[in-house]
Amino acid sequence: MLSIGVDIGGTKIAAGVVDEDGRILDRTTRRTPATDPELIEDAVVDAVRELQASHQVVGVGIGAAGFVGSDRRTVVFAANLAWRDCALADDVESQLDLPVVVENDANAAGWAEYRFGAARDSRNMLMLTVGTGLGGALVLEGGLVRGEGGFAGEVAHMTAVPDGQWCGCGRQGCLEQYTSGTALVRSARRRARTGHELYAPLLAAADGDPKKIDGPLITHLAEQGDAGARALLAHLGEWLGFGAASIAALLDPGTIVIGGGVSAAGDLLLDPARDAYDRHLTARAHRTLAPFVVASTGNEAGMIGAADLAR
Amino acid sequence: MLSIGVDIGGTKIAAGVVDEDGRILDRTTRRTPATDPELIEDAVVDAVRELQASHQVVGVGIGAAGFVGSDRRTVVFAANLAWRDCALADDVESQLDLPVVVENDANAAGWAEYRFGAARDSRNMLMLTVGTGLGGALVLEGGLVRGEGGFAGEVAHMTAVPDGQWCGCGRQGCLEQYTSGTALVRSARRRARTGHELYAPLLAAADGDPKKIDGPLITHLAEQGDAGARALLAHLGEWLGFGAASIAALLDPGTIVIGGGVSAAGDLLLDPARDAYDRHLTARAHRTLAPFVVASTGNEAGMIGAADLAR
Amino acid sequence: MLSIGVDIGGTKIAAGVVDEDGRILDRTTRRTPATDPELIEDAVVDAVRELQASHQVVGVGIGAAGFVGSDRRTVVFAANLAWRDCALADDVESQLDLPVVVENDANAAGWAEYRFGAARDSRNMLMLTVGTGLGGALVLEGGLVRGEGGFAGEVAHMTAVPDGQWCGCGRQGCLEQYTSGTALVRSARRRARTGHELYAPLLAAADGDPKKIDGPLITHLAEQGDAGARALLAHLGEWLGFGAASIAALLDPGTIVIGGGVSAAGDLLLDPARDAYDRHLTARAHRTLAPFVVASTGNEAGMIGAADLAR
Amino acid sequence: MLSIGVDIGGTKIAAGVVDEDGRILDRTTRRTPATDPELIEDAVVDAVRELQASHQVVGVGIGAAGFVGSDRRTVVFAANLAWRDCALADDVESQLDLPVVVENDANAAGWAEYRFGAARDSRNMLMLTVGTGLGGALVLEGGLVRGEGGFAGEVAHMTAVPDGQWCGCGRQGCLEQYTSGTALVRSARRRARTGHELYAPLLAAADGDPKKIDGPLITHLAEQGDAGARALLAHLGEWLGFGAASIAALLDPGTIVIGGGVSAAGDLLLDPARDAYDRHLTARAHRTLAPFVVASTGNEAGMIGAADLAR
Repeated sequence: MLSIGVDIGGTKIAAGVVDEDGRILDRTTRRTPATDPELIEDAVVDAVRELQASHQVVGVGIGAAGFVGSDRRTVVFAANLAWRDCALADDVESQLDLPVVVENDANAAGWAEYRFGAARDSRNMLMLTVGTGLGGALVLEGGLVRGEGGFAGEVAHMTAVPDGQWCGCGRQGCLEQYTSGTALVRSARRRARTGHELYAPLLAAADGDPKKIDGPLITHLAEQGDAGARALLAHLGEWLGFGAASIAALLDPGTIVIGGGVSAAGDLLLDPARDAYDRHLTARAHRTLAPFVVASTGNEAGMIGAADLAR
Repeated sequence: MLSIGVDIGGTKIAAGVVDEDGRILDRTTRRTPATDPELIEDAVVDAVRELQASHQVVGVGIGAAGFVGSDRRTVVFAANLAWRDCALADDVESQLDLPVVVENDANAAGWAEYRFGAARDSRNMLMLTVGTGLGGALVLEGGLVRGEGGFAGEVAHMTAVPDGQWCGCGRQGCLEQYTSGTALVRSARRRARTGHELYAPLLAAADGDPKKIDGPLITHLAEQGDAGARALLAHLGEWLGFGAASIAALLDPGTIVIGGGVSAAGDLLLDPARDAYDRHLTARAHRTLAPFVVASTGNEAGMIGAADLAR
Repeated sequence: MLSIGVDIGGTKIAAGVVDEDGRILDRTTRRTPATDPELIEDAVVDAVRELQASHQVVGVGIGAAGFVGSDRRTVVFAANLAWRDCALADDVESQLDLPVVVENDANAAGWAEYRFGAARDSRNMLMLTVGTGLGGALVLEGGLVRGEGGFAGEVAHMTAVPDGQWCGCGRQGCLEQYTSGTALVRSARRRARTGHELYAPLLAAADGDPKKIDGPLITHLAEQGDAGARALLAHLGEWLGFGAASIAALLDPGTIVIGGGVSAAGDLLLDPARDAYDRHLTARAHRTLAPFVVASTGNEAGMIGAADLAR
Repeated sequence: MLSIGVDIGGTKIAAGVVDEDGRILDRTTRRTPATDPELIEDAVVDAVRELQASHQVVGVGIGAAGFVGSDRRTVVFAANLAWRDCALADDVESQLDLPVVVENDANAAGWAEYRFGAARDSRNMLMLTVGTGLGGALVLEGGLVRGEGGFAGEVAHMTAVPDGQWCGCGRQGCLEQYTSGTALVRSARRRARTGHELYAPLLAAADGDPKKIDGPLITHLAEQGDAGARALLAHLGEWLGFGAASIAALLDPGTIVIGGGVSAAGDLLLDPARDAYDRHLTARAHRTLAPFVVASTGNEAGMIGAADLAR
């Protein structure tokens, strides 16, 4: 039983035929047509039709950034793509003779990890995606958590520090301000500017210009053993473990999957996260600590997850 | 289809026959026999047999304090009742010809609110029980959240304030240290001792002895309009709303139910909680705010919920 | 006995002849010549000579932004004026036949408040200047506090919130990030963007553009009774009182003087500050609360104070 | 020119004849007569007369716990000794033909460090006394800082963590709750109770009873290399450095002296304090870091300082 997964990104729409084991059998892409919702819908339909021509599929799952209604049919709000209460599933379905569902893209990617990736042996998964921002997805008792209105999983905006760093969301101390690629780079640049010797090699590697410090550079230096870069990643990891421990007090996940670009740092990020998780988790003496593992389904997780959710 | 719910408390075991609408048709009680697990099991069996004599029931649900395994059969750890990895369901089942399940008592009470009480029109419920401590229960997509090992719902030990007030659990800044009956009374006593005039009426009502200040006294004075008592309840409510907003960012509940003794203060507690929730919830402009409502199933919620979960 | 005070600002150098009662008898100004230290020294000398022509003076006091050495002769570092270890007093003295001292400009202004302004009846003064940033000056037992290296008074960079808002100084949670004009405007803009109705009138008064919200607009609306603007000023005041209480625990000032542009809001800022100070000050039952008063010597405080310190 | 210093402790009154180099030439003691102020005064007079019999002295300095008025004559409040607005200097002077001054005991001890001990080469000293609680003393520009009402130096009650650990003073987050012997022991006991393996050796050394863990045991294990004990001391030191950095932003001391029982841990406490100070001090690139040194005048610092302050 095959289905099609579509991942609508800011620059590219990727669609693929996915089988029940999460394998991609065929794929195609379209350029994302600016920010016009209708043109995007047309491009999605076009890509699906191309794949339908050579595959028998039972449904289409679309992964999209933004708040997706819990009925899995509507994009309530998407900051990047100008969608406001857009009936995406209805619109696409009306042009295809296939059932269509819409999912938040982070949820779709998380679902792929749960079904085919790092959490496939767990019934309760917390996924934290440390990219530019901080994303999240939850599977509890084998079901994706979407929330009453589809807004669940905004782990980025749990409060880590009362009266802490201002967040773009208009509140202070959001977890994303402490553990995300943006937080990593901000912290590195600010510390480098103080002239502290710990960050001198990092600053030197950025040609003396704090603005040239970015995430890959930090990870690269950390891998080479630089103490300042390692301290920065460790600090990020501590907040990651701290946040995961609060969520685990509430939800008791069986596996914690770490995804996103910053997870490329591997154990330089995850070991401090595990330590902090261990220290901050309540009642740890009575329970098995959930393992922290790196996401394994790669860049096409969103497409694979969306396809699977359409079955 | 009737079932029996049993609520094992520190001093009393209460059992009742419950119908599918959550009504209690018959009930009996036993004294809790000290902290001997075996004697407790005998008392439970005895109470169930008494009720079975006059009612046809399909199962037994037992609510117990402590960590209950996610298989709903074992009490992993209970601080008050000396249980360690106790096979409660097996033991009781072996003496009865009825299926038996065990649930954490806060989960059982929360389930009653979800099925028959304040959250009966919602598929996603967060319940916060502000008693001596802070309890919690979660229903998502119509299912009770138990977690991988049965440890879910420990909202008390999410971190509210990094490096904050020490908690009995061995960590700092747990939410329970900021919003619970214990936190309310501690705060009142400490402030009263400073001699600040705002708390003079409260201190006077406690015969000038800070140690005589307790929760009901604070609520009583607040209801009579005392500014100091109202400030104390409002402060508790703010932390309640603050904590609920972090959880809502993660889970997007449709209804937030407030239970426990302190909820007797009603809107003196809930209005500040709603305000803080409104201020701290991310993306509020795009969503409907979940209502804060007081729990409605009363003292027998645990029994009713346990019975319903046994069906 | 007259002396000359010179205030070197970013755009203007103001010099004046000041008598022993803090009155300005004569004055002159020069444009600040870009950021060239030598040209600035020439302009200072030129202004002093003009005033010397018609007044008999005993010395010159120069107020300058930046870190001034405790020997009162050297500007160690000034962010705006490109000074690095500049022997300002020596250089100017060598061109005049008068003794010259240099003081940090905030210290000079604070000294004017202590000698002739709002704190003239106190021997211990804390001055907090809430302008774009947060400045401070301390007089203890009748002496200006300069510190071992002249770095004292950096109240802006005491830590208010561990792991709080990043500061330009490369650290987190500095008090300046919570109580300053910059903090006020940032907070207003961020909150206005969330669409919260409390800030709707403020946003409307800024033509719907959060970037047009500035300090005077907030103060103006607050004076007209707008709840959102008042809440913003009150929040700033609370942090001001909070910070002052920590300093008072350490130094026990007799008077707290609030200066800077934001102090134009008067009691809309100061009443919440007083309340917070009262709540956060230790051992308040045993002591007289220091009054919070608005600075009274006006824009020329720096000139007056510098002149007086030269005597 | 000799003077007499008197140190009134909870169990013992110690008096000594001190010369201008801070040497004790003669000494005597009395038992502290319960908490009766009059009997204490009599005992002080008696001890002074004994010493006067064989030494020509110019004055008497009395060090006493509690808030001492800035006129150096009155004990405003002393928690342990039942003094309320006690005219100690007048009372004692009326029975002796010698000038008498009273000083807070921490201030007297700090003054001894400044004049004869670890800070004798500095004109600006911050002393932090990490004993059961956290004490402090300040010398700026060669003068002891007493504050407008004599309440200065309450470094214990500067706020380290907003909404942090409750303090006996009726407020939350006082620095004393994070860096003091009490904080050290509380932290050790709580962590040991969690069963975390890092603290297993410490718990074992306390015969498995968390209540037997005390400061000397922690220091002893730390000196032997135990990782858990070292982590506890390091954590205390970090808060010490954090607090010192905030004070240094305000006052720019030339030397930071660490006294009190916990300072016996030496560099196991001070190295983490120095690191944290370095990280948290603003504008560190532009200044010389004040050295952290251990107090050197020992148990009789209070007597020596009080005597010197009487000259």
